Amino acid sequence: MTATTSDWKAIGARKKQSVLNKIPQEWRLPAETLAKAHEDAELDVTGIPRECGILTADEITITEKYDATDLLAKLAAGEYSSLAVTTAFCKRAAIANQLTNCLTETFFDEAIERANYLDEHLAKEKKPFGPLHGLPISIKDSFNYIGQETTLGFVSFVGGKTVAKEHSALVKMLLDLGAVLYIKSNIPQTLMTADSENHVFGRTLNPHKLTLTAGGSSGGEGAVVGMRAAVLGVGTDIGGSIRVPALCCGTYGYRPSASRIPYGGQGTPGRVGSPGVLAVAGPLTTSFRDVRLFMEVVLGQQPWKYDHAVLHAPWRQLSAPKTLTIGTLPIDPAFPIHPPMRRALDSAISKLKAAGHTIVPLGYVPSIAVANREIADYYSLDPAITPFKNIEASGEPKIRSVAESPFVSKRNGKLDMDDLYTLNATRAQCMAAWHKIWTTTGIDVILGPVCETTAMPHDTFGNTPYTTLYNYLDYPSIVIPHLKADKEIDVGDDFISYKGYNAEKTHGAPTGVQVAARPQFDEELLNAAEIISEVLKA
Amino acid sequence: MTATTSDWKAIGARKKQSVLNKIPQEWRLPAETLAKAHEDAELDVTGIPRECGILTADEITITEKYDATDLLAKLAAGEYSSLAVTTAFCKRAAIANQLTNCLTETFFDEAIERANYLDEHLAKEKKPFGPLHGLPISIKDSFNYIGQETTLGFVSFVGGKTVAKEHSALVKMLLDLGAVLYIKSNIPQTLMTADSENHVFGRTLNPHKLTLTAGGSSGGEGAVVGMRAAVLGVGTDIGGSIRVPALCCGTYGYRPSASRIPYGGQGTPGRVGSPGVLAVAGPLTTSFRDVRLFMEVVLGQQPWKYDHAVLHAPWRQLSAPKTLTIGTLPIDPAFPIHPPMRRALDSAISKLKAAGHTIVPLGYVPSIAVANREIADYYSLDPAITPFKNIEASGEPKIRSVAESPFVSKRNGKLDMDDLYTLNATRAQCMAAWHKIWTTTGIDVILGPVCETTAMPHDTFGNTPYTTLYNYLDYPSIVIPHLKADKEIDVGDDFISYKGYNAEKTHGAPTGVQVAARPQFDEELLNAAEIISEVLKA
Repeated sequence: MTATTSDWKAIGARKKQSVLNKIPQEWRLPAETLAKAHEDAELDVTGIPRECGILTADEITITEKYDATDLLAKLAAGEYSSLAVTTAFCKRAAIANQLTNCLTETFFDEAIERANYLDEHLAKEKKPFGPLHGLPISIKDSFNYIGQETTLGFVSFVGGKTVAKEHSALVKMLLDLGAVLYIKSNIPQTLMTADSENHVFGRTLNPHKLTLTAGGSSGGEGAVVGMRAAVLGVGTDIGGSIRVPALCCGTYGYRPSASRIPYGGQGTPGRVGSPGVLAVAGPLTTSFRDVRLFMEVVLGQQPWKYDHAVLHAPWRQLSAPKTLTIGTLPIDPAFPIHPPMRRALDSAISKLKAAGHTIVPLGYVPSIAVANREIADYYSLDPAITPFKNIEASGEPKIRSVAESPFVSKRNGKLDMDDLYTLNATRAQCMAAWHKIWTTTGIDVILGPVCETTAMPHDTFGNTPYTTLYNYLDYPSIVIPHLKADKEIDVGDDFISYKGYNAEKTHGAPTGVQVAARPQFDEELLNAAEIISEVLKA
Repeated sequence: MTATTSDWKAIGARKKQSVLNKIPQEWRLPAETLAKAHEDAELDVTGIPRECGILTADEITITEKYDATDLLAKLAAGEYSSLAVTTAFCKRAAIANQLTNCLTETFFDEAIERANYLDEHLAKEKKPFGPLHGLPISIKDSFNYIGQETTLGFVSFVGGKTVAKEHSALVKMLLDLGAVLYIKSNIPQTLMTADSENHVFGRTLNPHKLTLTAGGSSGGEGAVVGMRAAVLGVGTDIGGSIRVPALCCGTYGYRPSASRIPYGGQGTPGRVGSPGVLAVAGPLTTSFRDVRLFMEVVLGQQPWKYDHAVLHAPWRQLSAPKTLTIGTLPIDPAFPIHPPMRRALDSAISKLKAAGHTIVPLGYVPSIAVANREIADYYSLDPAITPFKNIEASGEPKIRSVAESPFVSKRNGKLDMDDLYTLNATRAQCMAAWHKIWTTTGIDVILGPVCETTAMPHDTFGNTPYTTLYNYLDYPSIVIPHLKADKEIDVGDDFISYKGYNAEKTHGAPTGVQVAARPQFDEELLNAAEIISEVLKA
């Protein structure tokens, strides 16, 4: 297929315009606000929804005062109608999109219609439709929603052939649970970078500072939740794609163990049948307890009925320990963490110690650098290099962060069966070595950095060794927001060469920590993370 | 390496002799009995232990009257000492080995020493060492037991380099639980046939008729349990290797879902790091309830502490349904089941109907023949063809059933990464199609044949499409013994071409049925299988 530049540009532009056209006139920001919101503006736009005059006072309260747990209680009690809540979040999503370019598809009308249906249900049946009754939930573009395109930002996927005929398994579940779906959120070309940019929808900007990345690949979702255009969003993660945007946008973000949350029936930038690392679906939220809510509600609905690949492992209700034994991940000298990330981690450790928890600095651990290199090989197994073919099919070029991606192995498409046996054997050895650390130290969880960096200027985020580690190991892992980068304090040490650190440019970016546990120890992890989250807030 | 015929024959013969030498003189059968026990003798040897005069009356009672559940109660109560029980089973194992050639390694002295230790523990502590206190358990040769060789029947593995320095994870667990280990059991060269023959230990014979195979690859284990030389044995299964010997030898045999029982730390005939189908460990027993015992005891000991690859999915205690909805697997016309297997299945269906259970004949199901073909490709991914290299390394030839194996793909060692993507995509589709059958029919379990055939004359067993199906799908599946082949009744239909059926030759062979459930529905499966097992016994 040959295509001229104008072809792919025009196709992308038309698609994007068709989405923007669906924003009602009265939800549109004034031109002067729009003029200020661009990727070169060092602007925090999180306050604009409140100030722009588009939201009513009630709508500001609904979208700013509560988390999902609160809202669900009010929806179930009829204190708020789903119509009111859905309208508020649709409007805020429209505003957020104009500021951060966080959305791909919007289906506001369908959402309003469903909200009305749910309100009628509640009125008639005197009970909520389900445990997520009436709550608007945002989903990453990769999820299929009947009637909407799943373009994944590939120009070659635009034009109707990716219009979903079936919901993804999780989408069907969320609807069965009573949720309202209304938006899909932006992602990077190929889904394999921390910069959510593509040639259909453009680039998602960080709500806290538009010059910074919102993270990726669930960057649109990070911006949506960071803007409180949803209090519960669903992303996916094969190397940090939930946790990196959560860090960048100051939200909670949870990568569950593989195969606990339905992942089936999604669009994919690559090729079906990969023998590599499993991608997982998980929540981005504004509160810790909403992470638990998501897990308990989905697991409570027997997700194995919706997706053959989901483990038949019901959620275990455990009593939480009073004090934790927390292993701290040693920083790999190849990946020194930037001063604000160091400060967030040190602060967390100090607070946890002060609260009576035991900190166990882990000594030798299997090389994080090796795991990071090995996982890039796992990402690069497909001899057909399908994601790149999907780019080439329209004539569009690679975005910069894909062209420079650390997640594409030098052996991309050239790894053979021998290599895969070796990769698997090495990974099993690494898992066994880590297993020994757990069983010999008796730690409850591991505390460490999310990334080397906070949100970075666009196209410079690069590698994510501290999140890929847990994909490599299949460890459930959660990002807990904690503090913000401060150029006055976070000056760093002269003798450490920080990859591209610029205190000025990242000033104000959210920071956070990451907590992880062993495979399928999601329940134990969330119990511990709840305690840690409370300590960090105190 | 070059080796003459005499080299590999001599190495194998020396190794085998060294094992036989460890049988005390007073446990040896008279020459006239030994002369009758050979692979061309149509002889049922299951009665010989009772009649041969080597076992005391108590030892006959201990080895014949009880299952593991009974024995554990008596051991815990001090009614029998572990010394008495262990001695009885050591002696019976020695007898069984002389008749069926079922063993590889024996460590009777160590077992007796441990039994004494456990008896002292009970006397001193007034409580059993653990839930398997004092019980002798037999293990397949592939398990590593410190100080014993894991030759897997490869001549090239003899000579000290496979002497285990660490126990397999499950072996360590069983010891921690109080079991006594005393024997390892024979397997086929490469572990990939239903004929447990190799050039080190020779061929295992079927206790019920020595001219028939004991099955494979856990054929030694089948013969051990079939001879009641153990009431609980542990095998492994990647295509039927627990269930086929269970069928052949008239025992219960259970293939749990992958990764529920520790599999780690075993010897392997192949190459570490396979991206193919997972092998699993599971029990062969003389009673249904011992299958449950094994699962509950192992799962109750937090097996994920012993093996990083074990799912953190505790055993779920469920109440059993009163009546079952049982789907029956359609017989694939490519694999007609032999008349005795048909009769066993028909009898089971009749009895279950009569007992008030609902039988739902499944209509269209994804092709069993395709699954069987696809799994052979999964077995054949290793470009180094390591199992064959391990044969060639000593100069020994392939055994006949390996040379003619239906489990070796025509593309053995030649499948590439593209093929693997396609295999995985096809498998996922098949799993999804089956998932739909479960969710739309509401069946509790699937009932079907174990194999096309009963135990067959040596080297003619061939394919096992009805067991490989459940490895392909990762379905937990159990063999329940039911009836025996009878040449007077099992005449078959003229219009069906049964693969090698000979009513005369298989007369007296045990028959049985197989019951399966969805991945990680082990608990539901055993609840249903318990009901089915009771109905079949009635």
